[in-house]
Amino acid sequence: MPLTAEAQGVFTITVTPFHPDGRLDVESVDRMVDFYLRCGVTGLTILGIMGEAPKLEMNESLAFIKQVVSRAGGIPIVVGVSSPGFAAMRALARGAMDIGAAGVMIAPQPSLRTDDQIVTYFGQAVEAIGTDIPWVLQDYPLTLGVMMTPKVIRQIVTNHPSCVMLKHEDWPGLEKISAVRGFEADGSMRHISILCGNGGLFLDFELARGADGAMTGYAFSDMLVDLVKLHQAGKKNEAHDLFDAHLPLIRYEQQQGIGLAVRKYVLQKRGAILSDAQRKPASSLSAKARAEVDFLLQRLSKRDPRATM
Amino acid sequence: MPLTAEAQGVFTITVTPFHPDGRLDVESVDRMVDFYLRCGVTGLTILGIMGEAPKLEMNESLAFIKQVVSRAGGIPIVVGVSSPGFAAMRALARGAMDIGAAGVMIAPQPSLRTDDQIVTYFGQAVEAIGTDIPWVLQDYPLTLGVMMTPKVIRQIVTNHPSCVMLKHEDWPGLEKISAVRGFEADGSMRHISILCGNGGLFLDFELARGADGAMTGYAFSDMLVDLVKLHQAGKKNEAHDLFDAHLPLIRYEQQQGIGLAVRKYVLQKRGAILSDAQRKPASSLSAKARAEVDFLLQRLSKRDPRATM
Amino acid sequence: MPLTAEAQGVFTITVTPFHPDGRLDVESVDRMVDFYLRCGVTGLTILGIMGEAPKLEMNESLAFIKQVVSRAGGIPIVVGVSSPGFAAMRALARGAMDIGAAGVMIAPQPSLRTDDQIVTYFGQAVEAIGTDIPWVLQDYPLTLGVMMTPKVIRQIVTNHPSCVMLKHEDWPGLEKISAVRGFEADGSMRHISILCGNGGLFLDFELARGADGAMTGYAFSDMLVDLVKLHQAGKKNEAHDLFDAHLPLIRYEQQQGIGLAVRKYVLQKRGAILSDAQRKPASSLSAKARAEVDFLLQRLSKRDPRATM
Amino acid sequence: MPLTAEAQGVFTITVTPFHPDGRLDVESVDRMVDFYLRCGVTGLTILGIMGEAPKLEMNESLAFIKQVVSRAGGIPIVVGVSSPGFAAMRALARGAMDIGAAGVMIAPQPSLRTDDQIVTYFGQAVEAIGTDIPWVLQDYPLTLGVMMTPKVIRQIVTNHPSCVMLKHEDWPGLEKISAVRGFEADGSMRHISILCGNGGLFLDFELARGADGAMTGYAFSDMLVDLVKLHQAGKKNEAHDLFDAHLPLIRYEQQQGIGLAVRKYVLQKRGAILSDAQRKPASSLSAKARAEVDFLLQRLSKRDPRATM
Repeated sequence: MPLTAEAQGVFTITVTPFHPDGRLDVESVDRMVDFYLRCGVTGLTILGIMGEAPKLEMNESLAFIKQVVSRAGGIPIVVGVSSPGFAAMRALARGAMDIGAAGVMIAPQPSLRTDDQIVTYFGQAVEAIGTDIPWVLQDYPLTLGVMMTPKVIRQIVTNHPSCVMLKHEDWPGLEKISAVRGFEADGSMRHISILCGNGGLFLDFELARGADGAMTGYAFSDMLVDLVKLHQAGKKNEAHDLFDAHLPLIRYEQQQGIGLAVRKYVLQKRGAILSDAQRKPASSLSAKARAEVDFLLQRLSKRDPRATM
Repeated sequence: MPLTAEAQGVFTITVTPFHPDGRLDVESVDRMVDFYLRCGVTGLTILGIMGEAPKLEMNESLAFIKQVVSRAGGIPIVVGVSSPGFAAMRALARGAMDIGAAGVMIAPQPSLRTDDQIVTYFGQAVEAIGTDIPWVLQDYPLTLGVMMTPKVIRQIVTNHPSCVMLKHEDWPGLEKISAVRGFEADGSMRHISILCGNGGLFLDFELARGADGAMTGYAFSDMLVDLVKLHQAGKKNEAHDLFDAHLPLIRYEQQQGIGLAVRKYVLQKRGAILSDAQRKPASSLSAKARAEVDFLLQRLSKRDPRATM
Repeated sequence: MPLTAEAQGVFTITVTPFHPDGRLDVESVDRMVDFYLRCGVTGLTILGIMGEAPKLEMNESLAFIKQVVSRAGGIPIVVGVSSPGFAAMRALARGAMDIGAAGVMIAPQPSLRTDDQIVTYFGQAVEAIGTDIPWVLQDYPLTLGVMMTPKVIRQIVTNHPSCVMLKHEDWPGLEKISAVRGFEADGSMRHISILCGNGGLFLDFELARGADGAMTGYAFSDMLVDLVKLHQAGKKNEAHDLFDAHLPLIRYEQQQGIGLAVRKYVLQKRGAILSDAQRKPASSLSAKARAEVDFLLQRLSKRDPRATM
Repeated sequence: MPLTAEAQGVFTITVTPFHPDGRLDVESVDRMVDFYLRCGVTGLTILGIMGEAPKLEMNESLAFIKQVVSRAGGIPIVVGVSSPGFAAMRALARGAMDIGAAGVMIAPQPSLRTDDQIVTYFGQAVEAIGTDIPWVLQDYPLTLGVMMTPKVIRQIVTNHPSCVMLKHEDWPGLEKISAVRGFEADGSMRHISILCGNGGLFLDFELARGADGAMTGYAFSDMLVDLVKLHQAGKKNEAHDLFDAHLPLIRYEQQQGIGLAVRKYVLQKRGAILSDAQRKPASSLSAKARAEVDFLLQRLSKRDPRATM
């Protein structure tokens, strides 16, 4: 079931579970997939930036994809295939699709600067992976340093029918969603799905601006699922109440560098993975930071019982 | 009354008020200073990055400093003097001190990379402005791209007795506060004041890590003042309750690029300035963004009456 | 006599002479202008990046402009007015033109990324300085990090009739000259002057690609003048012979960071300035580096008597 | 025969030969190795930045290493193993050594900023590949954006006995060679080999500053070999004469972006490879650029018969 431009809901950016000694934690892969299924997510995005993708060898990546696809019971799996080289990108993309992925996600290389360079890059990427693979355009200037204007996104979408989704994580980015949706409204661009990242930090307003959901890995995917439902049901204040209850933790998890350590720590506490270990080079939490997260969870538990541990 | 390493509380990063046609809004300068005094702030920091400093000519800067100092009734005024050149930095710093400023703030130039380059830069800056001017070291990697380790900060502080304060806005930065305070605890560095920026986004925990207060311009300086007091009184949960109520707006205001537009819009609504105009090049808020801020203020007003407008 | 799109020849990027104690060296300003006039240059560009412009205060800049204009006997003087803020840019530009400058030069701010941001920036700059001032678009990605495609240059030139010249120092940049001249040939862009920077490192081929001359500060401006003449006379091999003789030194002077120290050292040896001092923060030459330059000059003197000292 | 700190001479950074359709050109690999052996090089460095390494899949890389090692008749082969992830770095490094490589080369990841981050990174890299593999520290700030001071290099060398060589291509970099050699002279650092890159643009002086030779891919490796010999024989002026004859082409080849296209074009003309094709994304030469290279070769042929074609 290939990914389409009609996708919506929550595609969790999953972590990749490791043992403390750095080996892939195969048992936790199943456990994690089961956890996300219980959260009610629409799909999973694996091997993203927060999935420690560059730390895996190709054969490990393929084994991980295979296990997730097998366990996920048919929900769509998107695989991050960003790479400094097109040969590796192609190999991983074709391999992932052969295994049963629904699509792939591609981020621009950090060296790209001009509009033309960016448009050309994605042309080369699509030529490399093949025009038959549905793919997600990742727009993440804060980390990648590449700035795509709405016009550049429109050009890429227009050039490539296989581009079906924008992973939106520009910051600030609310106006960008409005601009892209405006292109659809004025007929200058076909419709694509927009799912938002940035740890969910602006998801409350991103949905109202026209996003179809979230593609982020905040450790409470179940809350994100509920938030999208509340939004779709028009329950604006309930949606904001739920979001605001989580915002202190969302904000804490969104810190660059240590965000993944926070996320894995909470996922471990929630039973989604057995260890919060990262493969090297790893970030980690100090005792003070862990206590701060515990404190935030304890406060959150008074407003959302899911945070009770 | 020169700035010292014992400074604490809230030093608001003020905006610079302009008329819609770009002229300095002299009337609003007094209005704004009065507003901040009513907020109970300990000091003011003017001509910072969010003060549109590079848009002013030297004579305008000096006139603005003079007016603020005159109106501020003796609370310490810190003046941002960062500049691509030391001649301009010196001229502004000496001019500001002559007028009655309590100290100056210096950020590193964006081109600096190695530890030695950074340490050398501040050596040259202190030589330029003179060793008699108390100054604040601004550490703001997200915007400036210059990363100072705690060891580099220690070196700078040790080299320069006139460095009395760290404006901390690394992100993530909680561990950096702990590291710097650790140097003081182990006797390897003298005490300095640490005030935190980053729009206040982590102030709840920064205080617990050892910060002495805030140096940021979030439009509710009065809330920041209360937050510091609650922290000092050991009322941890009350402090977090107050902070969490404001977090949705703090987060919204903290967006790079449009953050200043949000801040001026709220300050105008609160009566602190007559116009939210920025001198060109200016960022601005779309109708949707203004409605989002209004919505956040309305929700906030239910938990903090100061947000009622 | 305002700068026009028909400008050609050599506009030397002058240094700014200082005494060893950091004061402007007024006597050397006249000496330097006289030297460049003897070199046969067409014009002078002052207060460029290699002119230590950010180290001067506004009143110093204006005094320096005035002295150069007075001494230069009517040849066109271009003044670098790049600035983080438009107020300072406007003040310097209007001041320079009032004094008798022929035009100004504007570089993009390093933070600019997308095509639209760059085009918008120059729109704001022109609005700030006024549409009546002829100006030079500086394209220097190696130092500024801003990449302008030929299409962006065309857009800026088309938007602003007052833009009369491109200071070309992209690297590599030969194809860019061909592309811009191609726009003129196909009628999609009006003619502008193109003068090349980059220390002259590719001037041999840049002229053949369609450049009108050089805007660089290599310490042998007289050689650059001859090179342009040989090119215009169609003496290709003589031009390359002359260029190749100087290339070892051109290459040595083109090193980022210490290039200015090399340039001032040679200019001092040639009698153009009394001291090779830079205002702080200054780069300097080690004894080994000075010996290397002396060695290069000695070797050069066998092929070009101007290098005999 | 593992790489040692006594290595000297010329280690050519080889290209990777491709067919125009993007397949590895196996026939040209042998042809190229034979060519470099005829040039008299001391060793070869494969899969460097100019070897299009990120464009190869792991199995292609291993096959290429194997073929080069087999053909090279025992001269040391260094393999570039830089990678965004340590798993891939380890796999390639161990694989290369198993095949018979003499050592590996590691560049820092572009995101590294502070001294401590850089030192830590190489600690993790050595832990990943194992302490038994001799390795070359690549210092290339112009392309990578990572600045290592001499002190940082000393720290890395001191931490890791397996670090035996510095590939020096800082720019400007002459003082860095002197500084590192100064550390050896004052006893604060053990001796390592220093081979210089940067396309050879400063090799004339780098040797005199204390470099042991070149590690670059300029298309006339035979000239580099002769240059090192002339230097070692104390024939300073002959060395400079030879170098200066090649400098116009060295300079032309050193252009970022298109440099590899120039290099492959010349290598093809010299018969070292059958095609100058690059795997996508590829840079290429315009007709004008090819004519310029031809012109430079023709001029060079009058001073060095090796350039006659």
